[in-house]
Amino acid sequence: MTNLHFSHALLPDGWAADVRIDVDPSGAIRGVAAGVPADGAVRHRGIAVPGLANLHSHAFQRGMAGLAERRSDAAGNFWGWRDVMYRFLSTLDPDDVAAIAAQAYVEMAESGFTAVAEFHYLHHAPDGTPYADPAEMAAAIGRAAAESGIELTHLPVFYAYGRFGGGPTEAGQRRFVNGPDRFARLLEASRAALRDLPDAVVGIAPHSVRAVTGATLRAVVAAAGDVPVHIHVAEQQKEVDDCVAWCGRRPVDWVHDEAPVDARWCLVHATHVTAGEVTRMAASEAVVGLCPITEGNLGDGLFPVPSFLDQGGRFGVGSDCNVRIDAAEELRLLEYGQRLRDEKRNVVAGAPGRSTGRALYDRALAGGVQAHGRAIGALAPGMRADIVLLDPDHPALVGRSGDQWLDGWVFGGDGRAVRDVWIGGRQVVADGRHLARDAARARFARTVERLADR
Amino acid sequence: MTNLHFSHALLPDGWAADVRIDVDPSGAIRGVAAGVPADGAVRHRGIAVPGLANLHSHAFQRGMAGLAERRSDAAGNFWGWRDVMYRFLSTLDPDDVAAIAAQAYVEMAESGFTAVAEFHYLHHAPDGTPYADPAEMAAAIGRAAAESGIELTHLPVFYAYGRFGGGPTEAGQRRFVNGPDRFARLLEASRAALRDLPDAVVGIAPHSVRAVTGATLRAVVAAAGDVPVHIHVAEQQKEVDDCVAWCGRRPVDWVHDEAPVDARWCLVHATHVTAGEVTRMAASEAVVGLCPITEGNLGDGLFPVPSFLDQGGRFGVGSDCNVRIDAAEELRLLEYGQRLRDEKRNVVAGAPGRSTGRALYDRALAGGVQAHGRAIGALAPGMRADIVLLDPDHPALVGRSGDQWLDGWVFGGDGRAVRDVWIGGRQVVADGRHLARDAARARFARTVERLADR
Repeated sequence: MTNLHFSHALLPDGWAADVRIDVDPSGAIRGVAAGVPADGAVRHRGIAVPGLANLHSHAFQRGMAGLAERRSDAAGNFWGWRDVMYRFLSTLDPDDVAAIAAQAYVEMAESGFTAVAEFHYLHHAPDGTPYADPAEMAAAIGRAAAESGIELTHLPVFYAYGRFGGGPTEAGQRRFVNGPDRFARLLEASRAALRDLPDAVVGIAPHSVRAVTGATLRAVVAAAGDVPVHIHVAEQQKEVDDCVAWCGRRPVDWVHDEAPVDARWCLVHATHVTAGEVTRMAASEAVVGLCPITEGNLGDGLFPVPSFLDQGGRFGVGSDCNVRIDAAEELRLLEYGQRLRDEKRNVVAGAPGRSTGRALYDRALAGGVQAHGRAIGALAPGMRADIVLLDPDHPALVGRSGDQWLDGWVFGGDGRAVRDVWIGGRQVVADGRHLARDAARARFARTVERLADR
Repeated sequence: MTNLHFSHALLPDGWAADVRIDVDPSGAIRGVAAGVPADGAVRHRGIAVPGLANLHSHAFQRGMAGLAERRSDAAGNFWGWRDVMYRFLSTLDPDDVAAIAAQAYVEMAESGFTAVAEFHYLHHAPDGTPYADPAEMAAAIGRAAAESGIELTHLPVFYAYGRFGGGPTEAGQRRFVNGPDRFARLLEASRAALRDLPDAVVGIAPHSVRAVTGATLRAVVAAAGDVPVHIHVAEQQKEVDDCVAWCGRRPVDWVHDEAPVDARWCLVHATHVTAGEVTRMAASEAVVGLCPITEGNLGDGLFPVPSFLDQGGRFGVGSDCNVRIDAAEELRLLEYGQRLRDEKRNVVAGAPGRSTGRALYDRALAGGVQAHGRAIGALAPGMRADIVLLDPDHPALVGRSGDQWLDGWVFGGDGRAVRDVWIGGRQVVADGRHLARDAARARFARTVERLADR
């Protein structure tokens, strides 16, 4: 049993000092006591908070970070960026994906994310043929998760069509495509491939309204059972326009009309929504998956956070394209986007008396946990021991207390404020460095250097 | 003489390999040669770029980072934030300011800024009485600059009034206020106080349209001679509305009408501007001082970059309130704000064929240099040897080349991509750590802890 003692910790009922957390061998928290001496537990000076759950990642895209930042690539809009991305992925093999994903997951852990929902669509060989083991790529993701220690919620993507209403896919999408039957086999194989990874959860991800039909969406959701269901929706205005042109309805409305959207669902982006759609999303209890850094990079636009929260809406954050991986910066940019649009300060409010950094953290934590559908996200008995220890001497935190620690990290900090991280009770980051950092970086460097030569 | 050799460098005519830079004892670059062996120079593996000039800082505000991120402080808008700021500064003494500024400047250097324009308005004792030496606070800023090694352009603020048209100041502003005569003495004393700081430049900063009249603005500008002139303008819509209510003109128009705005001027923020004002600013050849992180934090709004650049406008970036200090993040957030508003990608374009990261860097470098009015900002003979060495092994840069290095740093990196920094030929950052980091942090920690107890 691992026993830890922290000078300060954020517990479900608030900040506490001298907190002892006992972790059982399975990685779950057995007991939490505040205001107690270490009594044999290892003492850590610092501020322990529950690790944030990243609810949306395409890990392989970490390898193309910075390669689409020029107009001459026709990357002046989202669709040009997507072309660059399709070219990038066209030659990746499973070892490439494992190397890139391991780097991404190590960076996530170092920045304060202790869980990742991997929205995984790179299924087949470069020519579109399924691998002998349909879960070959899922296994690569599993190896990366194991190396980093991050809690993995793996979401095999159901991608059946290339245009609204069941239109054909493009050549660049051939590595993604499965009909419902082949998807069922992929899902089963993915569950088998990740069986040995402690606490991996396998959900499903119908890719987008464009990639499914109403009937196939309902069928794959029904067949998957009680698991997380993630879907991209309304990220770009063109997607909304195309959807309306096809069926007369907007994507978020369409999903709610066609499928049993509930608290198991994560609606990723949902950038372009009407007031009516905001109300439906809040009422459905689905989580909206906001990806502020990616949405900034791709020029998606800004989600209407205030009206959504006013109606009880739930959100979490995802690192999505992984062009930059930093938990604090996702929260900061989420808030700053709203401030810049509305010309106000402190837009995301929380429970009375809580600061904005705390409100952002509480909400993103709860939303991320819901999107993962598992017992994480609180320093409380029965939860996984996923703990981020903030450095009380970091210049953004020093001299602060309580919610100000989160304000310092979120508005003034980055991964350098994260000193130690435990996931499932196992320490993976010590003194700011992931224990696998050097190995992951070296393999990542070899991989991107080789890809640059192709 | 210091002789340096870099595996790659960004020279005025582009990227070069095996670059030798000879620095004379004054800190100026004597010679630059590309494609040459080290030949006795110290070899550094990495990518050398000219250090960025930060064109707008209020150093003392680094000490209040994270203290105004809650609605209950009435900090729901800029003006409430300003109240928190006024309370914070009300008790600072010169040693406090020196300690906080040293921390800020060390962080600037570690993130890639090698020069800072300090917009300095905290002149007098807490009760508003001038110190026996009017430049007591300027000297504190000078000590911080000396400790960090950063090139200082010190801008004593002329702050005569509290309302448009010469209205009275508030109690919270008493530490700032000088009439023209007392300001002239302050300016002279500031020049004397900074005489021993190598290469410090002293300009002036009429605080804002609100803090001057047309006659006093013209008078202080004329009296100051050929120096940089910085002014806050049109940061908040309320400021524009108040200005129009007072005189029927908007702030940017008013400044151009009343004063000889030219290339010596830096118009800080200029967020709320009409098409006509954009044209006037571009035509005046003044630099617009954009402060993306602060403008996000304060909910100021978004400057119309595309139309300004189309007319040949010039901008640089400033860290302003210093709630977070990071050169790459300023450029990234500048670009992302534009992308989010316009729903496009790669908004800031540069010379043909250059990437967006390069365009942002080139433009912010040129604009920053102009706002400092001195020979910095290029790896070329006669320029100060202000050099930032990027780490080629950083995961955001590895496997990249040329402009992609800047794309990696700007879109995927932060100060951790900065390995070494020389300012005026003197190495101040080695392996990511400022040589004064530990001392500055310790003093900063004591200062903010004591302030928290007040």
